[in-house]
Amino acid sequence: MPVFLNATDPDFETAFAALLGAKREDSVDVDDVVAGIIADVRARGDAAVIELTAKFDRLELTPETLRFSEAEVEALVAQVPDHERAALELAAERIRAYHVRQMPQDHSWTDPEGAMLGWRWTPVSAAGLYVPGGLASYPSSVLMNAIPAKVAGVERLAIVVPTPNGVANPLVLLAARIAGVNEIYRIGGAQAVAALAYGTQTIAPVDKITGPGNAFVAAAKRRVFGKVGIDMIAGPSEILVIADADNDPDWLALDLLSQAEHDESAQSILITDSPAMAKAVAAAVERNLATLERRAIAGPSWRDFGAIITVPDLDMAVELSNRIAPEHLELCVADADAMSARITHAGAIFLGAWTPEAIGDYVGGPNHVLPTARSARFSSGLSVLDFLKRTTLARMTPAALRAIGPAAETLAISESLEAHGLSVRARLNRLNE
Amino acid sequence: MPVFLNATDPDFETAFAALLGAKREDSVDVDDVVAGIIADVRARGDAAVIELTAKFDRLELTPETLRFSEAEVEALVAQVPDHERAALELAAERIRAYHVRQMPQDHSWTDPEGAMLGWRWTPVSAAGLYVPGGLASYPSSVLMNAIPAKVAGVERLAIVVPTPNGVANPLVLLAARIAGVNEIYRIGGAQAVAALAYGTQTIAPVDKITGPGNAFVAAAKRRVFGKVGIDMIAGPSEILVIADADNDPDWLALDLLSQAEHDESAQSILITDSPAMAKAVAAAVERNLATLERRAIAGPSWRDFGAIITVPDLDMAVELSNRIAPEHLELCVADADAMSARITHAGAIFLGAWTPEAIGDYVGGPNHVLPTARSARFSSGLSVLDFLKRTTLARMTPAALRAIGPAAETLAISESLEAHGLSVRARLNRLNE
Repeated sequence: MPVFLNATDPDFETAFAALLGAKREDSVDVDDVVAGIIADVRARGDAAVIELTAKFDRLELTPETLRFSEAEVEALVAQVPDHERAALELAAERIRAYHVRQMPQDHSWTDPEGAMLGWRWTPVSAAGLYVPGGLASYPSSVLMNAIPAKVAGVERLAIVVPTPNGVANPLVLLAARIAGVNEIYRIGGAQAVAALAYGTQTIAPVDKITGPGNAFVAAAKRRVFGKVGIDMIAGPSEILVIADADNDPDWLALDLLSQAEHDESAQSILITDSPAMAKAVAAAVERNLATLERRAIAGPSWRDFGAIITVPDLDMAVELSNRIAPEHLELCVADADAMSARITHAGAIFLGAWTPEAIGDYVGGPNHVLPTARSARFSSGLSVLDFLKRTTLARMTPAALRAIGPAAETLAISESLEAHGLSVRARLNRLNE
Repeated sequence: MPVFLNATDPDFETAFAALLGAKREDSVDVDDVVAGIIADVRARGDAAVIELTAKFDRLELTPETLRFSEAEVEALVAQVPDHERAALELAAERIRAYHVRQMPQDHSWTDPEGAMLGWRWTPVSAAGLYVPGGLASYPSSVLMNAIPAKVAGVERLAIVVPTPNGVANPLVLLAARIAGVNEIYRIGGAQAVAALAYGTQTIAPVDKITGPGNAFVAAAKRRVFGKVGIDMIAGPSEILVIADADNDPDWLALDLLSQAEHDESAQSILITDSPAMAKAVAAAVERNLATLERRAIAGPSWRDFGAIITVPDLDMAVELSNRIAPEHLELCVADADAMSARITHAGAIFLGAWTPEAIGDYVGGPNHVLPTARSARFSSGLSVLDFLKRTTLARMTPAALRAIGPAAETLAISESLEAHGLSVRARLNRLNE
């Protein structure tokens, strides 16, 4: 059974704090193993990657077969049925259209002192995208990672995807192709992350690595951070649904289950001001769970981490939501726009009951890589900005330097940085000659 | 002696690669100590912070004196001479004016299918700023961290600054006050980072921690990352000066030394197409080093990590610069704007010889917290974006769902995520009833 809370109960605050603080993931300590793998790949390059792939993926490769050939990709993507291809293309088009709008502008201006100031955005030169193999090998994630990179202008985009026993997912390859990626390596795990970060004889190093992965991949990304940029380390998925009395309990139940089916550690929470709706959704979840294909995953998630919270009014729902800072937030209420304006922390908001979260996973347009584990308090979902960086610009004129240089000199002296002050003074002296 | 390289030498590529790969910082492994400190602060709160402050800073505090009182701040800032106050105020005003322009816009639109899409930016609720004590206690860094946070709209901004033996830096407190920070704690080290991240009885937790610090602070920031957001982990400072023959060697020498004086591990590089200028700058550095207050720091930095590279033409200077991806880049050339447009990776560019890098440290306006150690390949300097996060928005109409919902269902089924598909299908069925 999930947790049932009533916000008017005297012990609610304690129970809610426990819900907020609940640790849903066992942190497996694989750091030493990963450190060894990275050192090995740095030292031996391809040879290490090939050896580790044979060991972990039961797949014998050579430097020549690390990368999928064009012909292989062609043959695999030809297997994808037309309706799946069309769906992927629609998703790609919508994701691209959304992310194009995120492109930031360069900006420069001249200030009253005559100094030119501004900034300029440039793309990362090369990015690597990790795609998990097996059960969690999602073509939608390929689109969500690769398209923002391409929109940002990243010239070289390399994908690594393990193919245990040599079995590749044609949809993943098709997604890569649709997104404009040509460089695809059939490797995974910490060895793939190390190869992307440090390069090998056949794999050129990249500057940024994004994409989800298991504990080994996460530990490897943490370790190579600094040598390259990484995206966030994602935790298990979460959804918060805020609903009033005017909803179909089955819709809400399926929305809750669509997070629960991701992972036994996923969390689905309903907040409602209607005790009747709370009951009806609880019943609908059980009813749907009974036949759900992934009930062995969704069931434990719902039982162990699910929650239904009844609140006296929707103001309190907003307040609790802002404390949770959910990854996904559905507002199934009469005036979703008004409520949305009061949400201060959330990865993505889905407005109104006609917007199931699953739309956002695939075809909505916004990115589905979002901050988990309450990190929406301080971070954002993946965007084109993750593949861009900003260079600040400044140009002084003699007059501008005369106006503001003395203050710089004063502060340099106050910080005991004499050469800083002298570098300004030498120029000011020239002006006074 | 610094390294002298000539790009036309046959072994240049090897020597340049060695320069790029040089490890300038000893990584002190303080991770276990830091883990213990964080656990202690989480377990005992104020008591642990007070005990550790007595031990490391030789300062006896109580829960009541952890924080500077208004009267104490008042008394300390009254000691700041007028010309220093005026310089700080000018700097603050210019930094604010620059960062205000960085504020991103919210955006929403309705697409051809009738779906509303967009995003909204919101500030982090509370940020903590680490300010080092002792020699590297820079008031300018307080401005550079606190002002972007205030401009972003962060409501609560707490500063931690250690005061070894109880000695506080009045300019740091004045900078905090000018930047609009009122909450200032006289604590430092890993214990201060832990207190900001997890909170204690008297210090409320924050959502984001920024600011420079020593190895303990850096290790603590890495460890609390995830619980809170952090800024980059900065390495030693660097400057690259690209100069043609038409320059004053003394200006360039002082610019190189203004990085070298920061830290024995700092790196200063000159690239020039003029062998005569290369020689003249080398001599000017030695001449200025002889009397420089911080020659004991700047000397080793220049000797161990400094470099002067002669290139056949300035095109090659651009190419080498893009491989270095410098934190600070001065373009002391005839057409700095044209050269700047070809720079693909740099934290900050200073255009023309009238723009010494030191201007950017204090009063230029752009932020002086910039990516070091070649990380300008994938990251940017501090900005208002570090204190904001983006929530994506989506609202379907029945018609929009009818148009794009089937593709979502197809992809959900292809990814074996049945509940995802059902959550869309339940709504589509309603439309077909």
